[in-house]
Amino acid sequence: MTARRNVLFIMCDQLRFDYLGVYGHPHIKTPNIDRLAARGVRFTNAYVQSPICGPSRMSAYTGRYMRSHGSNWNGIPLRVGEPTLGDHLREIGVRNVLVGKTHMAPDREGMARLGIPADSVIGVLQSECGFEPYERDDGLHPDGRYDPAPRYDGYLREQGFAAANPWEHWANSAEGDDGELLSGWLLAHADKPARVPDEHSETPYMTRRAMDFIREAEEDGRPWCLHLSYIKPHWPYIVPAPYHDMYGPEHVIPVQRADGERDDPHPVYKAFQDERVSKAFSRDGVRERVLPAYMGLITQIDDQLGILFRFLEERGLADDTLIVFTADHGDYLGDHWLGEKQLFHDVSVKVPLIVVDPGSAADPTRGTVSDALVELVDLAPTFLSYFGGVPKPHILEGRSLLPLLHGQDSGPWRTAAFSEYDYAIDRARLALGTPVPDSRLYMVADGRWKLVFAEGFRPMLFDLQADPLELRDLGADPAFADQRQRLTEELFAWTRRARSRITRADEAIAAGDDAGRAYDRTFGQGIVIGYWDEAEADAERDKIRRYHAGG
Amino acid sequence: MTARRNVLFIMCDQLRFDYLGVYGHPHIKTPNIDRLAARGVRFTNAYVQSPICGPSRMSAYTGRYMRSHGSNWNGIPLRVGEPTLGDHLREIGVRNVLVGKTHMAPDREGMARLGIPADSVIGVLQSECGFEPYERDDGLHPDGRYDPAPRYDGYLREQGFAAANPWEHWANSAEGDDGELLSGWLLAHADKPARVPDEHSETPYMTRRAMDFIREAEEDGRPWCLHLSYIKPHWPYIVPAPYHDMYGPEHVIPVQRADGERDDPHPVYKAFQDERVSKAFSRDGVRERVLPAYMGLITQIDDQLGILFRFLEERGLADDTLIVFTADHGDYLGDHWLGEKQLFHDVSVKVPLIVVDPGSAADPTRGTVSDALVELVDLAPTFLSYFGGVPKPHILEGRSLLPLLHGQDSGPWRTAAFSEYDYAIDRARLALGTPVPDSRLYMVADGRWKLVFAEGFRPMLFDLQADPLELRDLGADPAFADQRQRLTEELFAWTRRARSRITRADEAIAAGDDAGRAYDRTFGQGIVIGYWDEAEADAERDKIRRYHAGG
Repeated sequence: MTARRNVLFIMCDQLRFDYLGVYGHPHIKTPNIDRLAARGVRFTNAYVQSPICGPSRMSAYTGRYMRSHGSNWNGIPLRVGEPTLGDHLREIGVRNVLVGKTHMAPDREGMARLGIPADSVIGVLQSECGFEPYERDDGLHPDGRYDPAPRYDGYLREQGFAAANPWEHWANSAEGDDGELLSGWLLAHADKPARVPDEHSETPYMTRRAMDFIREAEEDGRPWCLHLSYIKPHWPYIVPAPYHDMYGPEHVIPVQRADGERDDPHPVYKAFQDERVSKAFSRDGVRERVLPAYMGLITQIDDQLGILFRFLEERGLADDTLIVFTADHGDYLGDHWLGEKQLFHDVSVKVPLIVVDPGSAADPTRGTVSDALVELVDLAPTFLSYFGGVPKPHILEGRSLLPLLHGQDSGPWRTAAFSEYDYAIDRARLALGTPVPDSRLYMVADGRWKLVFAEGFRPMLFDLQADPLELRDLGADPAFADQRQRLTEELFAWTRRARSRITRADEAIAAGDDAGRAYDRTFGQGIVIGYWDEAEADAERDKIRRYHAGG
Repeated sequence: MTARRNVLFIMCDQLRFDYLGVYGHPHIKTPNIDRLAARGVRFTNAYVQSPICGPSRMSAYTGRYMRSHGSNWNGIPLRVGEPTLGDHLREIGVRNVLVGKTHMAPDREGMARLGIPADSVIGVLQSECGFEPYERDDGLHPDGRYDPAPRYDGYLREQGFAAANPWEHWANSAEGDDGELLSGWLLAHADKPARVPDEHSETPYMTRRAMDFIREAEEDGRPWCLHLSYIKPHWPYIVPAPYHDMYGPEHVIPVQRADGERDDPHPVYKAFQDERVSKAFSRDGVRERVLPAYMGLITQIDDQLGILFRFLEERGLADDTLIVFTADHGDYLGDHWLGEKQLFHDVSVKVPLIVVDPGSAADPTRGTVSDALVELVDLAPTFLSYFGGVPKPHILEGRSLLPLLHGQDSGPWRTAAFSEYDYAIDRARLALGTPVPDSRLYMVADGRWKLVFAEGFRPMLFDLQADPLELRDLGADPAFADQRQRLTEELFAWTRRARSRITRADEAIAAGDDAGRAYDRTFGQGIVIGYWDEAEADAERDKIRRYHAGG
């Protein structure tokens, strides 16, 4: 590397692509993110590799599709030894550091089988998806589950917010008129302020922790990739003042749904429509109560990013730091008669993605918008390439975005984006009676058409040009059989491209091509196959001698 | 386990399915293997998962297809942590022991990344594909490559066979009339006896080592799975007296090839026809010189198996030991104008498979022949099941053969057998100009039809009923488009069944189904999604109480 280089990799959780000012939301205020977009490239077709936290993040952190990394759902351990961005960056002297959420579940059985102590340096890296955990906090600490003692809870206690579970009872609860605790988990309370003031809530806390790391890293001197990973605007939908009433029902945009979507829907879609959360968000008044809190959480993030970006500028880091702003998936919020995520409508599977490359090579693209089909598996190869690492296409299944950022004509980017979902753990599987291994969905989106391949069922199909809100499923319409066939073939080709030969690089295999053309390399290693007699063997030895003599 | 149980897993290397008496060869003498078949089930449609040593063996030893284990060619390391038969057996107290060849290449980079010392117990298991290496010997020790000091070389030296490389210069060489060394690598010398007498050659040596282990294991007391893995009848095609002239040109069966196969062949097939070894075996006189040695090597194995089986009987082990006899792939030997293996004609991709289950449950099938489509990935689940282990379909991609061995109607076995080949390391890739990651072939065989899907090229297709010798490629014939389509869809379905979620069993996922039907399990863990107010939450709490009260 010739110059100091860092990466700030910001991820929000459950942030829809369309809930930012720069992405066209008519009411939400996100001036700092909007300004970030003006400094870099804003992608309008960025897809996550699974529309749920864990698998989506494992894809982002490994640069590999779910079908390859195998961590199919939240809490499914990432197999020990699965190569991560951290592994690739450490090889070239770059620290890969975490502040916030990863949703990583360690493969404790695999680690035990390989004799890796969980508290060793390697054990920690294996448990933290390759990140150096400056502050690991998955952002969900309900009573009775998850890590019971996040550092943030200790922080709240130090600030005087005493409780058995400060996260739940202070940061994610409100108070009634008589001082009674009102759980932030309940949608009815989304319009009330959280019990903690803004400065002590999670987003400002994590932002300060990121700045703590950056300060320390300056003394350390090594280049870094910092993953600042906010839990918000993920539920519980509750936010401190003044964000709790910054937006009101008048700022809630119309729901994106059609009655026809409930008329003979695809069986898997129907099963998700029947989930409690979908029914809740489909009821009158729920969106009006919840969405202002969701929007407040987003503006709170934006305000904190303003502080963080000024901090970078003041320390002279803005010119050295590639910044990514993105999310792990969206949120239906009642659109399509659904809540949560899990399916493949754009509001769930598409995310905001803004990338600022500070180098002069990126000047031609500053402030531009790209509709290239990009995927979050592209981030790891982008970072590796930014730090000067050798590409690893035999492991990393995405592509470096640097050519796009540098305005280079890199040929056709990709013909389709892919995403997967395993609903084996959802109630949908019980409703459908699907076998566990067959509870699988795949999305193939080419920019205009989007196919959802459902194992054991007919596919779904949307024409995003004629029907940008994806309200008409053409999956059973005979008129579109050709499109379904074409996209299914794309999916088949994609399944064949899974990279499992991760222990040998393509380049290593091709390294001997010149010699292989000139003589029998196997023979050169003493393995003599297909030679009749000494004369034939001697002739081959001559070839080898001539090759090495440069003949 | 109620009774002592062991497994003797015998594998030959490069043994064609049709070069055994019981499989119909008109001249070869294999009375002991024939008698083994009379005691068990002989499979006539057993396919390897890649027609080359390394990947085929990695599939047999992991129970996983190549697309999953990723060790695509000889010498490509098996990624650290890839679960093996040995891992599964050790969990239930069974030793998994090796005598002979595995072709395992350890993932030294991966082991270093995980801090696993190569000389630790875990490091050795990771380096030996999960086997306890009682005697590891890959059977090829040419000058200048491979492990330079096999124990067998030391043995030969002790017997007075002094040389820098006793394996090459004694066990795999002959002598000329004037005492000069004649390399066993050269096909012209295949009719001469090896310089070592029979008793000191590799097959008897390895057989004795297997018996050494079995004796020691009796004192140890733990059940064992012993992999006795002969390098023979793999080249170098040279065998000691009296086997070197036991067969002559009169015992060489007619070559299986047609002129039409050289008339506009499939490009990949053509590239392999153009390999040196293919041309060598296509020349007049080569088969007549080489095949008698190949057959002698097989009869030598059979004689040794006679000794081994008597040994088991004398020690009372025959009634406790499940015996498998098979091979890692076949050998073209000039059929189809090819040498070596690598492609998917039956003589390459189909292997002998005889399984003797000593238990009374298998009595109904003794001496029978099964045409079920079986694959070598079925062996690991068979052994696991035999020892009473819990099936692991989320890891093991094959199926236990026990239902077939017990004559149970287990429903449709499988609709097609699959095999893969990665020719990135072959000269064929250079000839074809194929990109490294696209140099892939897949076989789908349903018992009658066989499709070879070639990335970037048209497929090949054979009708084994009309054309059992596979001399007519129907891959470009419009009349068979339907069959090609059908088998291609089978391949697509198979690619979607890759088991990558190896850290969580299907059963573990389904374990909470009852509770999941009765109440919201996520809610039970403190995660409250889609609840409007306290009343809704209380109602769900009631459901949980009722469920746990058995209501």
